Order: sequence, then C-alpha cells, then structure tokens
Amino acid sequence: MEIKGTPEQHGYWMPAEWESHSQCWMGWPERFDNWRDNAVHAQRVFSKVATAISNFEPVTVCASPAQWTNARSQLPPNIRVVEMSMNDSWFRDTGPTFVVNKSASGAQNLAGIDWNFNSWGGIDDGCYKDWTLDVRVARKILEIEKVFRFPHSMILEGGSIHVDGEGTCLTTEECLLNKNRNPDMTKEQIEDNLKKYLGVRKIIWLPRGLFGDDDTNGHIDNMCCFVKPGVVLLSWTNDKSDLQYERSIEALSVLSNTTDANGRKLEVIKLHIPGPLYMTDEEAAGVIQDGEAKPREPGTRLAASYVNFYIANGGIITPQFGDEKWDNEAVRVLKETFPDYEVVKIEGAREIVLGGGNIHCITQQQPAIK
Amino acid sequence: MEIKGTPEQHGYWMPAEWESHSQCWMGWPERFDNWRDNAVHAQRVFSKVATAISNFEPVTVCASPAQWTNARSQLPPNIRVVEMSMNDSWFRDTGPTFVVNKSASGAQNLAGIDWNFNSWGGIDDGCYKDWTLDVRVARKILEIEKVFRFPHSMILEGGSIHVDGEGTCLTTEECLLNKNRNPDMTKEQIEDNLKKYLGVRKIIWLPRGLFGDDDTNGHIDNMCCFVKPGVVLLSWTNDKSDLQYERSIEALSVLSNTTDANGRKLEVIKLHIPGPLYMTDEEAAGVIQDGEAKPREPGTRLAASYVNFYIANGGIITPQFGDEKWDNEAVRVLKETFPDYEVVKIEGAREIVLGGGNIHCITQQQPAIK
Repeated sequence: MEIKGTPEQHGYWMPAEWESHSQCWMGWPERFDNWRDNAVHAQRVFSKVATAISNFEPVTVCASPAQWTNARSQLPPNIRVVEMSMNDSWFRDTGPTFVVNKSASGAQNLAGIDWNFNSWGGIDDGCYKDWTLDVRVARKILEIEKVFRFPHSMILEGGSIHVDGEGTCLTTEECLLNKNRNPDMTKEQIEDNLKKYLGVRKIIWLPRGLFGDDDTNGHIDNMCCFVKPGVVLLSWTNDKSDLQYERSIEALSVLSNTTDANGRKLEVIKLHIPGPLYMTDEEAAGVIQDGEAKPREPGTRLAASYVNFYIANGGIITPQFGDEKWDNEAVRVLKETFPDYEVVKIEGAREIVLGGGNIHCITQQQPAIK
Repeated sequence: MEIKGTPEQHGYWMPAEWESHSQCWMGWPERFDNWRDNAVHAQRVFSKVATAISNFEPVTVCASPAQWTNARSQLPPNIRVVEMSMNDSWFRDTGPTFVVNKSASGAQNLAGIDWNFNSWGGIDDGCYKDWTLDVRVARKILEIEKVFRFPHSMILEGGSIHVDGEGTCLTTEECLLNKNRNPDMTKEQIEDNLKKYLGVRKIIWLPRGLFGDDDTNGHIDNMCCFVKPGVVLLSWTNDKSDLQYERSIEALSVLSNTTDANGRKLEVIKLHIPGPLYMTDEEAAGVIQDGEAKPREPGTRLAASYVNFYIANGGIITPQFGDEKWDNEAVRVLKETFPDYEVVKIEGAREIVLGGGNIHCITQQQPAIK
C-alpha cells in the first residue's frame, strides 16, 4: 500500500544498521554474464553469507523462477526462500530502504522507500541493459511483508548511503552527483530529498568512493561506514603509490573537519584494504560476455574492501579475501570496534567482489519494530 | 520446514471451511490455451472474487513473473500480490491443504499438506502436459508463510475432498479411485491416507461427481459440500432427462443411508444446477488450441454448479451463471442455509467454469490459529 508524501512528513526515519532487525533480505546470483562459471561459486558464497546471518536473525532469500529449486536445495531449511524475478542479486541496491516511525501510542511502524533504479548508471554507463525486473524488487518485498511503501522517482541505491540513525547521512559525490543518476537535480535538491526520505538533518559528502569501484561509481558502503554515532570506519591503505591512497587521505580530511547532525566531531578508524587484487585470466574467462552486461576483463582492479560487511543482530559478517595479512588485520580491527559482537569471517568473499560488490551489497536489513 | 511422519501422528487435522481463516490464497489465470481471449475475462472475474473475499478476510493473489504487474494493477491495494510461477491458477488443487493442531499449552499450530499433483490425470488424461510449476505451488506458499510442511507422494487435489472438521471426509470414487491418479493404491490404502493426513475417522464415498466434470474426474467440490456437521448441500436437478439426474439420485441414496464420524444421520439440502449450459462457438474460438492443454470444444456441457462456492469469514462467495431462475434459487437456498452469513453473488462466474471449475476451485483458505 502506497503512502502519499515523504517519510519525514509522516515521522519516519531510517534506523542505523546496528539497531535490531526482524530479518535480512538477500537475492540469489544467477546471471552467467556477471557471475563466472554459471554462478556456481557465487551461489556457494551467497549461501555461506545467508547461513551465517541466519545464526543471528531470520533470513529470506529471493530467487528467480528458474533458480528457486536450486536455491532451496542449497540453503538450509531455516532460511526462507521466496520466488522473485530480478536482473541481478544486489538487494542492498534494489531492495527497499526500510524506515520506522513512532506513533502517538509509542508503537513503531515500518515502511519502505522504493527508490528508482537504473542499473548503476543507465543504458550507456550502467552494469546491464535491462533492469526492468530489478525496479520491482523493492515493491515485491514490501508487498510480501505487507509494509507501507513510499515510491520515489529519484535514482538511488541503498549502497550509496549510510546513516547513524541520529540524523546524519554519509555518502559520496562521485555517485550521488554523477550525471548518470539524476542529471536534472542539483546537489541541494539531492540533499533535500535525502533529508525528507531518510529523516536526516545533515549530509556528509565524501568526494570519492573506493578506487576501482567503477560499477557503482564509488558507493559509500565500500569506502566508509558508521559503527556507532560519532565513529566511522574508513577504507585505508598505507601504500602511497596506490591510487586508493589519495582517496583515503581526501576522505580522512573531510571526516576530520566536519561534525555530525548532533555537532559531534567524528572519530575515524582506519581499515586497511586487501591486496591490491586483480581479476585473473581464468576468472574473467568464466564470465560469458554476451553484450548485455558490462564486460569483465582480466587484470581489472577489484573493488575489494573490508568496510563492506553486514551488521546482524549480534554478528558482524565480514568478507575475507585470501590475503592473510589484511584479512587478519580486518578481523582484529572489527573485533575491537564491535566488542559486543561476534565477528564471523566469510572465506571466499572474493567471488562476490568479482561480481562487483560484497556482503553489504547483497544484504538488506529489515528493522524490528517495537 | 518439513515435518516427518503424518499429520495425525502430530495431532493435526483439517478444519472445516467455515472455521475462522487468517487469509485466502488465489492464483491468477493466464494460459491462453485454457482461458479465452488471453484470459482477459477470467482475470476480471478472478479479481471480482478476490475483491469480494477481501471484504471478509485478507487475500493473497499469486501471479506469474509475466503477470505480476498486470495482476497488481487490476487488484485493489488491500490485496497482497506475490510473484509465483504456476501452470494454471487452481489453488484449491495445487495449494496446500492446511491443518491445525493444539499444543499441550492450548495454543494452536498450523501446518500444510503438500500433496503430489499430476494435472488431474497425468500426461494422457490430464488437463495439460507440463505441471512442473504447479507441483511447487504448495511448498512456495508454505515457505512464504513459514508454515511447517507435510510432503506426500500421493496424488490428491484439494477440490476432491471436503471435511466437516469433526472427523468426516466426503469424496468421490470417480476421482480418488480413478486409475489416472494413484493406480497402485487400493481403496483401503487411500482411505487410510486420508485418515492419517486429514485427521478424519470416516470417509463417505459418493460414486460420481457432477455430470460433465471431466477435467477433474468428478471433484466433490462441484457436487456436494458440508455446510455444518451433519448437513450437506447436494447438486441437484429436477429434470429426469438430464444425465445429472441419476448422479444426484445415486448420491442422495448414499448420503441418506450413511452416518458421519460421530454417528449422525446427514441432512441433505438440494441445490439445483443451472442450465444445462454449453460452451458456445465464440467461447471455444477464443481459446488458443496449442496441443499443450486439453482442447476446448464448442457444445461441451459445462460443469456448472452452485455448490462450488467459497465460505469466507462471514461471507458466502457464490457463482452466478446468468441463468436468472436458478441463480436466484441458489441465492435463496444459500441464504436460508447460512443465515449468519452475507451471501455475495459473483456475476460472470461462467468465465471460470469455461476454464474448468469455479469459485471453490480457485480459492484456498488458510485457517486462523488461536
């Protein structure tokens, strides 16, 4: 059921990811022109992620008509598997952004924002040419859950925003101001829409996202995230010759010279990236190049980042890339940053970054309402 | 999640249709080789039925990937529309048979029986040649609702059984003993399975269903139904020259000479059939004959019956066939039989019988648990 007006007008806001969830939504990878070897490896890693999350909160995995039986047989029985058509499986970006409010009686309500979507950049610049199924994903999820829907004509992916749940939104200019998203909107208009839809009062703009994250044009969720109000994790490298270096320095400068919606200075925790990692010949050869999806070339720098984790109820589900040094360091930092959480390592997360993202990109939390 | 063993072993039984529902499930007609004129008329009547039921209880309509948007736009917003692949839209027969139990604490639980299905008779005798999507419908519904599932290898359609909720099941030999369903099972074995799965103690066997109901091989839900324990409605005709006459007489004789599970004699209320009605040239011409589905021939006697209604929470949703005399008489009898219910007439239900069934065949109640 559609609600007229903006979430803010109805008292809704987007909670932080660490606030309690009723469940997590995921898609199921399938397209052979993005996921190598007919998606067989990606499906195993998605299953690992879903299973790991299901130890902390209920999980629903949506799979296409052709894949439902396969997904059902690969996933454990405690995970719900629902049929849903999609063009690809990045539910952070195609799923709804859930928002909550508090009624006069004190009870919370849930609603979802159904943003517009153009495959991360439209027909010329996006990742694939047909996204007609993706644009229905958010609405179908809300329909299954009987949750109210705020449709919006603005192009926005969930991975391009992070909130602290207390009025602050973190995003990148590289993505949100990109002419391949909302070319007719000014920065002020975009800010205004974020405020009215996410229920925030302040937007912190990082200039750029992670180096190599061309698929998403620098989504914030591969670069920097809140861990609690006033504290962020930032993708970092010590290697001054790495093109990531100047992006991290630039972001650190912005973060160090701003305040959040409540006037707090931000504490910045550095989280060193792996690698650098590159797509191998074998990996690229496993992707069928059919002209429908962006080609996958051997030697491409992978947009690999440990910031791309998921905060479940009591668990941090974190990618591991087979880079022993930085994998271990990331786990150490995350354990220190989230002392009350269990940090769960997902080995083989390289398979997800080969497709263009990571654990945060393939998950979408549904807040619990009280 | 699957439960091992039979529903009876776990204390489950099938409640009567007049017991309270949490919702009603329906499919969405689409196949052009069964529904004339690309299913446009059928879709309008299904929408009418769904809308009528939604005035009494929540309704979920499942539509194929290709039809989801169309279904969503035709149905009112209070009806939930969920994507689901299917070969056709007879959810009475392909949906789960819901059963309930009562735990030690007095709380009720819900589960669903996932019968096997063979398109009403298999490759030679059934209604269409591919039913691979239909066999997944019950499981997908249970998955969406997170309801426990009792899988069963026996072929059975929900329209071939009626229960009084107090231990009695009503069915037909024409269907359940047909060699095109479970050729390797004896009548005793079938009885035994009905008892163990529906939680009943007594099966009343009518020899045959409605004349002309060849698609289903005489489903009980077109012939006779319980209206409360000890009382049934029987499809009837006064016309001795109608081939239905001897079927009704035969059934009346069985019903008059039996008792239910609790030793009660049955009261039989006669409900006169419409017509007889026949498929017109124009109606048959609107069905694309593609060799995949049973041909629809002009002049075919339609299996039209007023017994094929749905009992919603407080409403009787009843077909009307454009036969003024018998339409009115059916409404009169139903109002008298269900004095505490609102009787809602669905004009144009002829469109559903052209496809092979009626309102009861396209609906599936999900019991409310207390």
